[in-house]
Amino acid sequence: MQIPVVRNILEANEKTAERLRGEFAKKGVLVLNLISSPGAGKTSALERTLRDLGGEFKMAVIEGDLQTDNDARRVAATGASAVQINTEGGCHLNADLVRRALENLDLDNIDVLFVENVGNLVCPVEFDLGEDYKIAILSVAEGDDKPEKYPSLFHLAKALILNKTDLLPHVEFDVERAEKGARRLNPGLEIFETSCKTGDGLEAWYDWLRREVRAKKAAAG
Amino acid sequence: MQIPVVRNILEANEKTAERLRGEFAKKGVLVLNLISSPGAGKTSALERTLRDLGGEFKMAVIEGDLQTDNDARRVAATGASAVQINTEGGCHLNADLVRRALENLDLDNIDVLFVENVGNLVCPVEFDLGEDYKIAILSVAEGDDKPEKYPSLFHLAKALILNKTDLLPHVEFDVERAEKGARRLNPGLEIFETSCKTGDGLEAWYDWLRREVRAKKAAAG
Repeated sequence: MQIPVVRNILEANEKTAERLRGEFAKKGVLVLNLISSPGAGKTSALERTLRDLGGEFKMAVIEGDLQTDNDARRVAATGASAVQINTEGGCHLNADLVRRALENLDLDNIDVLFVENVGNLVCPVEFDLGEDYKIAILSVAEGDDKPEKYPSLFHLAKALILNKTDLLPHVEFDVERAEKGARRLNPGLEIFETSCKTGDGLEAWYDWLRREVRAKKAAAG
Repeated sequence: MQIPVVRNILEANEKTAERLRGEFAKKGVLVLNLISSPGAGKTSALERTLRDLGGEFKMAVIEGDLQTDNDARRVAATGASAVQINTEGGCHLNADLVRRALENLDLDNIDVLFVENVGNLVCPVEFDLGEDYKIAILSVAEGDDKPEKYPSLFHLAKALILNKTDLLPHVEFDVERAEKGARRLNPGLEIFETSCKTGDGLEAWYDWLRREVRAKKAAAG
């Protein structure tokens, strides 16, 4: 009974997402949709990235949260442009919310647009935002079984940031099990093992970002 | 456009939940709906509780997951009855899924029924399962801002298990901020600070459970 309605919603979303994707392509803006559980470190990863690469690229952030503008304030403190979307209870962003947020950003002046989705490992995965790639973030405090248990995100993501590696000595988390589980779903998955607290492992993520920014610009001509 | 459909779904769910609640009341079964992000420690809290109180009460578990029966196998290893529901991508349990799972359990032989919801801090909150109480679990690795950012659960829960306190020396988590944030939404919230790894703080949770089991039995006469 619910399925046809959901399908219509997804189809409408897909149309808006395709329009956005066209616009991003024309302007050469790399767009990354960051998805994770609450508290896996999306905002911390953004803060580090914005500070460390702020001299190389022009970056902007669309923050999705049920409530509060805490995260937009955190990322704006790095000097990046930030727009907050409050979903007022909604469990994911959709392309139309992103479209509206874009009214507050100047795409001609952005190399990388990060969209930080609502903290939720399930629902955001279904909704295309016109991004180039979904980036999964998993904290080692969440357990190494999460790729098997929440497969859709790991199946669709371009890259996985395995975060909070500084906690590895204090939790039972088998990095190999988690990475094998994720690569079983997605053999081409890029994996970055990082600690946004200590900075460990971020350089590999930054190198990947640099390559992708160059590729996107080159494609836009 | 979507709202009337969602309302119908919630109304249908509410009717089923009320029927279940009546059945649980008649049988004197205490039913707790455990809700958290992925990896906050729902299954670990259950494993400890089932082992430590297995001699006192007859306990059963309904496990909700998108995929796998990992969690049902983990809790069944304690000797408790366990039924796995796979939502196949669905982001929350609903009353009808619980109703169907109950076909595999004997309510006459159960004092406490735990329902472990899909790991998701948002969607499960909307769906009444006929439970006595929702129990929120938050891991200190997730950040002390989560009650403000995901208010619905903390507003509606009867109790909050603040878990993984063994990690407090290794993360930036202000227990007072988290608890204040949660109590601002819900002044009567019971809070248990626990480590399911070391066992710290579990006795207070067990005492609360003992009181609630007695009260439920007494009300059933």
